[in-house]
Amino acid sequence: MKVWKRFIRMKLELSVRVMETQISEIQKPEINGKQTHIDLLKTINNRHRLLSTPELRAIVKIESSLLKGAREYFEKQGFIEIVVPHMTKATGACENIATMFEIDYFGHKRYLSQTAQLYLEVLTPSLNKVWCIGPSFRAEPMADERHLTEFTLIELEFAGDFEQLLHHVESVICSMLDSALKESAKELIFLNADTERLRGIRKPFQRMTYTKAVGLLSDFGVKWGDDLKSNHEKLLVTLTDNQPLFITHFPTTIKFFNMKENDENPAIVNSADLLLPSSGEAVGAAEREYRHERLRERLQSSSMFRQLVEKGGSIEDFRWYLEFYENHGIPHSGCGIGLNRITQFVLGTDDIRATTAFPMNRESIL
Amino acid sequence: MKVWKRFIRMKLELSVRVMETQISEIQKPEINGKQTHIDLLKTINNRHRLLSTPELRAIVKIESSLLKGAREYFEKQGFIEIVVPHMTKATGACENIATMFEIDYFGHKRYLSQTAQLYLEVLTPSLNKVWCIGPSFRAEPMADERHLTEFTLIELEFAGDFEQLLHHVESVICSMLDSALKESAKELIFLNADTERLRGIRKPFQRMTYTKAVGLLSDFGVKWGDDLKSNHEKLLVTLTDNQPLFITHFPTTIKFFNMKENDENPAIVNSADLLLPSSGEAVGAAEREYRHERLRERLQSSSMFRQLVEKGGSIEDFRWYLEFYENHGIPHSGCGIGLNRITQFVLGTDDIRATTAFPMNRESIL
Repeated sequence: MKVWKRFIRMKLELSVRVMETQISEIQKPEINGKQTHIDLLKTINNRHRLLSTPELRAIVKIESSLLKGAREYFEKQGFIEIVVPHMTKATGACENIATMFEIDYFGHKRYLSQTAQLYLEVLTPSLNKVWCIGPSFRAEPMADERHLTEFTLIELEFAGDFEQLLHHVESVICSMLDSALKESAKELIFLNADTERLRGIRKPFQRMTYTKAVGLLSDFGVKWGDDLKSNHEKLLVTLTDNQPLFITHFPTTIKFFNMKENDENPAIVNSADLLLPSSGEAVGAAEREYRHERLRERLQSSSMFRQLVEKGGSIEDFRWYLEFYENHGIPHSGCGIGLNRITQFVLGTDDIRATTAFPMNRESIL
Repeated sequence: MKVWKRFIRMKLELSVRVMETQISEIQKPEINGKQTHIDLLKTINNRHRLLSTPELRAIVKIESSLLKGAREYFEKQGFIEIVVPHMTKATGACENIATMFEIDYFGHKRYLSQTAQLYLEVLTPSLNKVWCIGPSFRAEPMADERHLTEFTLIELEFAGDFEQLLHHVESVICSMLDSALKESAKELIFLNADTERLRGIRKPFQRMTYTKAVGLLSDFGVKWGDDLKSNHEKLLVTLTDNQPLFITHFPTTIKFFNMKENDENPAIVNSADLLLPSSGEAVGAAEREYRHERLRERLQSSSMFRQLVEKGGSIEDFRWYLEFYENHGIPHSGCGIGLNRITQFVLGTDDIRATTAFPMNRESIL
């Protein structure tokens, strides 16, 4: 056990050195004396001057084929598309109300939505399997290689449990990769993507519990109950030979209020984050609480709810949602898949600005 | 000629009476002592109580099949999907800046986009045929049967001319109708949609110039240079036995700044609005100006630009767009298809609130 742990530690420390080297290369692309195709796409100043380049054309085609692959899976599996609202009350929040853009909606404070989750959830009892793809908005002040203020989120919700959920996540992603390999092979090669690596991605993905992950990261100051930071996520991925890795069963206290508590241990929820090489967390997935009383209690004791009250909001924002669960709750699960994170993984790039034609951050708005 | 004109006038007056009857029926559904399925879906108060009804389930399936039909056409024709920004400067405006929702974007005034047109346009030279489907936002204070603050817009742009454009519009819509008839036949019957009428829609659609339309409407006070109002549009549709009708070649002064002037008569543009029974204007389509100097002149003399300046904006908002056309302009055309208007036509309902699960207006935000 000690030898194994020392091995892991050596591997982690090696990864840290590799990552540091990679990061310094990103910040100083002139080190090699030449830019790669991907380097060109990291530019946000005067983005419009890139619009007719073969690099941007390639990225658009790859992104388009990834979206097509996701939809193909939904079609085959009988998921129904839902048109969801993007201007919402706090029910459009994804954990953190502080990062919601506020809009003046005829004199009332409203938000740009971060997730359609609650809107998909309430259609699950009657439609069984539903999905949507659309913009997710984050008022993220950092304009760097990891943050966007608007990105595309692929969301699904269905009447089923945790195991079925992880299978859907794996299947959507494999369908996206297959579609990119089939429809955009030339573009992937042009951008130096490692197509052999993509072809090697197989279901089921590897899994590790949050508790085990924290054990491996204890030498890096991570304690049980902490959220994992992006550098921790990247280290964990290196342990799986750069394969997709589910981290499962996070502490209840650090996750969204309606993630279902584990039957055997209510201190953890039946949730999973999917970590990918290059991008880190690309998917958040969970079974949902559907019992009305427990939902209300969990919401009112959540940190998100405290934030809402501090901003002048109240339980009234969630009235329609809670009222729905008085009569219509059934067991269900769902997830959100960040398209740009999948594209990062496909391209093998640490820079999210390289993943789309119009990357949106504080400085790049057109 | 006089006899023909008298016939038209009788037909229009009859239509007005029919419409008035229909409107009074909409406002007083209790006249018949029973609600239809569609009447139920016109409700926005406590919308969440409808979420598990068979009526709402049916409308979601119809909407989903219409979207699928549009995408099938894009796939078959080799159009590439573009991920577009929804927070923009004034370049996200669709003619009227006054109806844009404003957002505080890190201390700067920005807008929620109404159209992705300019963002699609600048990718047309390198990708030839492009499309997107997403939300369009309008700060529309009326909460009634005709207005939404957020709705789904299907947009396409391609390197081609006006005739090809009208063919694409017809083909997308026929593909949507075919898909609904194939995938949602049960739901259409359940909601009393006239499926025989839908099956009878054939390409090419009928056309009438704006100038001719104004002539027919002269007895109703419409003069050349006026925009057509929704009651005028409905009257014109009755002349085509409730078939889709293109109104073409509108006056340059009342249309978007980059619609291409007609070579033989610069007082009109190569544009078309598609009118549908039940919904009125469902599509706006036009050839685009692509010559840099003319674009700049047209923009700076447009009423939209005056609005922008009054709101503290400037030509700087359009810098990236104009700069792009210094080097990359090619002949191209495009359109925006309002999904909810198509759904109204399919259902035969005058009420846009009946077309989607979460209709968004001033009063209905969840």
